[in-house]
Amino acid sequence: MLKKPYLLFLGEARDAPHAKTAFGLRDWAGDDVVGQHRLEGCAVDLGVPDLSFAQAVERGARSLVIGVAPVGGAVTASWIPHLTAAIDAGLDLVSGLHQRLADVPELARAAEARGVALHDVRRPARAFPVATGRKRSGRRLLTVGVDCAVGKKYAALAIAAALRERGADATFRATGQTGIMIAGDGVPLDAVVADFAAGAAEWLSPDNSAGHWDVIEGQGSLFHPAYAGVSLALLHGSQPDAFVLCLDPQRRTLASFDDYPIVSAEVAIERHRLEGALTNPAIRCAGLSINTSGLDEAAAEAVKAELRQRFGLPVFDPIRDGAGELADHLLAADAGAAA
Amino acid sequence: MLKKPYLLFLGEARDAPHAKTAFGLRDWAGDDVVGQHRLEGCAVDLGVPDLSFAQAVERGARSLVIGVAPVGGAVTASWIPHLTAAIDAGLDLVSGLHQRLADVPELARAAEARGVALHDVRRPARAFPVATGRKRSGRRLLTVGVDCAVGKKYAALAIAAALRERGADATFRATGQTGIMIAGDGVPLDAVVADFAAGAAEWLSPDNSAGHWDVIEGQGSLFHPAYAGVSLALLHGSQPDAFVLCLDPQRRTLASFDDYPIVSAEVAIERHRLEGALTNPAIRCAGLSINTSGLDEAAAEAVKAELRQRFGLPVFDPIRDGAGELADHLLAADAGAAA
Repeated sequence: MLKKPYLLFLGEARDAPHAKTAFGLRDWAGDDVVGQHRLEGCAVDLGVPDLSFAQAVERGARSLVIGVAPVGGAVTASWIPHLTAAIDAGLDLVSGLHQRLADVPELARAAEARGVALHDVRRPARAFPVATGRKRSGRRLLTVGVDCAVGKKYAALAIAAALRERGADATFRATGQTGIMIAGDGVPLDAVVADFAAGAAEWLSPDNSAGHWDVIEGQGSLFHPAYAGVSLALLHGSQPDAFVLCLDPQRRTLASFDDYPIVSAEVAIERHRLEGALTNPAIRCAGLSINTSGLDEAAAEAVKAELRQRFGLPVFDPIRDGAGELADHLLAADAGAAA
Repeated sequence: MLKKPYLLFLGEARDAPHAKTAFGLRDWAGDDVVGQHRLEGCAVDLGVPDLSFAQAVERGARSLVIGVAPVGGAVTASWIPHLTAAIDAGLDLVSGLHQRLADVPELARAAEARGVALHDVRRPARAFPVATGRKRSGRRLLTVGVDCAVGKKYAALAIAAALRERGADATFRATGQTGIMIAGDGVPLDAVVADFAAGAAEWLSPDNSAGHWDVIEGQGSLFHPAYAGVSLALLHGSQPDAFVLCLDPQRRTLASFDDYPIVSAEVAIERHRLEGALTNPAIRCAGLSINTSGLDEAAAEAVKAELRQRFGLPVFDPIRDGAGELADHLLAADAGAAA
C-alpha cells in the first residue's frame, strides 16, 4: 500500500512521452498530487506547483513518485543526491523502474537510516496463493484488449469514476505499475510467477457486497503470442460478470509483432466469452472502449456510431468521452436484474 | 544442465507414492541411474544397487538426486549429515523440494568448500526473454490435458522414446521438475514469471533441423481455473505442429476442484486447435493418451477402441502400451508431407 499524497519527480525529462507516468498520475489521481519536482534541464511541466522536498512535506506529501522513464530503466546517477534528499525529508520513494531502488546502495542506506520505505511497483510486494476458482460475491468488470496498449487502464479508470459519479460503489483494481501508483495498491500481474497469476487476480478482487463493482485493469491480450497466458490467468481469476473490449481502430497488426493481424471485435468478444465462461458462465460483453486519439472528432464519431450499430452496445473513448454511457447501461442492467 | 549419472536418495521413504520422483527416474532415465541410497527405516526399494556415496562416485555418479517428497517440502533435518557427506564425496545435489538447498546453511557451506553445485529444479536457473511469436524450424509436439496429472509427462516421454526407436530424431523437452531430472535439463514453466512464460517455452524448443521432433511436456490444462494461463503460454510458445490430448477416463471433475467438470475430448481438441492456431495455424491433434491405470485390461481396451472410433486417431496408454502407434502415424504423416 503506497502512502499518498504524492510529489511527482520528473528528473531531467525532455518530453511528455518520457513522463507518461507523471501525466497519468496527474490526470487520474490529481487529488493525490501536491506538486512536481524538476531538476535543471527538465523540459516538461505538469502544470502543478514546483515544490522542494521540504515544501512538499509541509503540504502533506508522503511519497516521492518517480514519474519519468530514463533510458535503460535504471536510476540515473544524477538523481541519487536528490532522491537521497527526498528520503532525508521523510518521503517514501515509489518507482516503476527496472532497477530495484534497494539495489542502489545510497538509497538503501538513507531509507534505512530515516525509516522510510522504497516501493518498486514493478515487483509483487507479497506472495499469492494458487487460485481456487470459487465464485466470489459482488460484481466484477474486466477491461480486455485486442492488443497491448489499447486503453485498458484508462477504460477501467473511466468506468470506475463514472460508476462512482452515479453514486454506485466501485473500486478500480490495478494490475500494472502506473495503475498501482494511481490506485495506491494493486498487483503487477505480469511479474507474478505463472502458477500464481490467477490466484493473484483472485486476491485482487475479493468477496464484496452484492452491489459493489470491482473494475479491473486488463493486461496483454488473449491474441498476443507473448502475453496471452497472463491475460487468460487474469480473465479466470477475475471471473468478470462483464468485460469491456478495448480497441484502436487504426491498428492493423499487434504493436511490434507485424506478423500478427489484429482480430475482429466479433472474434475477440466471442473468445473472451468462451474462455471467461470457465469461471463465470454468465460473463457478457458490456461495451467497447475505443482509442480515437489518432482521429479527428468527425472520424471518431463515425467509428463509434458504426460499432454501436454493429454490436448494439455502448461505445466510448475513455479520454474523450468518459465512460458515462457504459456506466448508465451497467447500472440499468443491475436495476433490471434486481427488479 | 544437471550432471549424470545419478545416485537416487530415498531418505526414510515409507511408501512408493512418496518416492514417485525416484521411480520416475528409474523408469524413464534408467541408464542414468547407478543406484539408490537409503537411510535406516526406508521401506522403499527401487530394485537398483544400494550404494554408499563413495561407491556411487566410483561407478561414475556425478549427482545425488533427492527422489523422495518429505511432508512440508523442506529438507528433513536427519538428512543433512548424509547430504553433506554426499557433497564431500564430490556429488552435486539435485532437488525438487520447496525449500532451496542453498538455504540450508550446512549444505551451502559444504557445497562451496567442495566446489559442487546445488540444483533446485523447481526454480528457473536463468532469465528468459519475452516471446517473439516467430515461427521456428523443425517439428514440435506438445502433450496437453483436460486436467492436471493425467499423464502429460509420461505421454511425452513415451512419444520421444518411440520416435527414437523408429530411427527418428526426437528430443524430450521437460517443463516440470521430474521431467527436468529425467532429461537433465528443461524449464520449470510454472515457476517462470508470467510475462516470460511463453518466451521460456520458445527458448526450450529452439530452431532445429527440418525432420527433428521436439516432444514437449505439457503443464496444467486450458480448462483449469488456476493454471490455464501457464498452459496457454506453453501452447503459444511451443507453437506445436501436433498435440496429443491426455485424459483419465475415470475422472469426472478436476482433481481438487470438484465444481469443475472435466470437458469432453471433443471440446478439448477444438479449444487447443483454436488457441494453438495463433502461433501455428497448421496445428492438429495427433492422438489421445489415456491413463488406464484404474481399469483392467478389457476395460482399458474398450475405452481405447471407443476413442479410436470416435476420433479416427491413435489412442494409447503410455505406460501400458508405449506410444508406438502414435509414432508410426506421425512418421507416416511426415513421409506423406515430404512425398
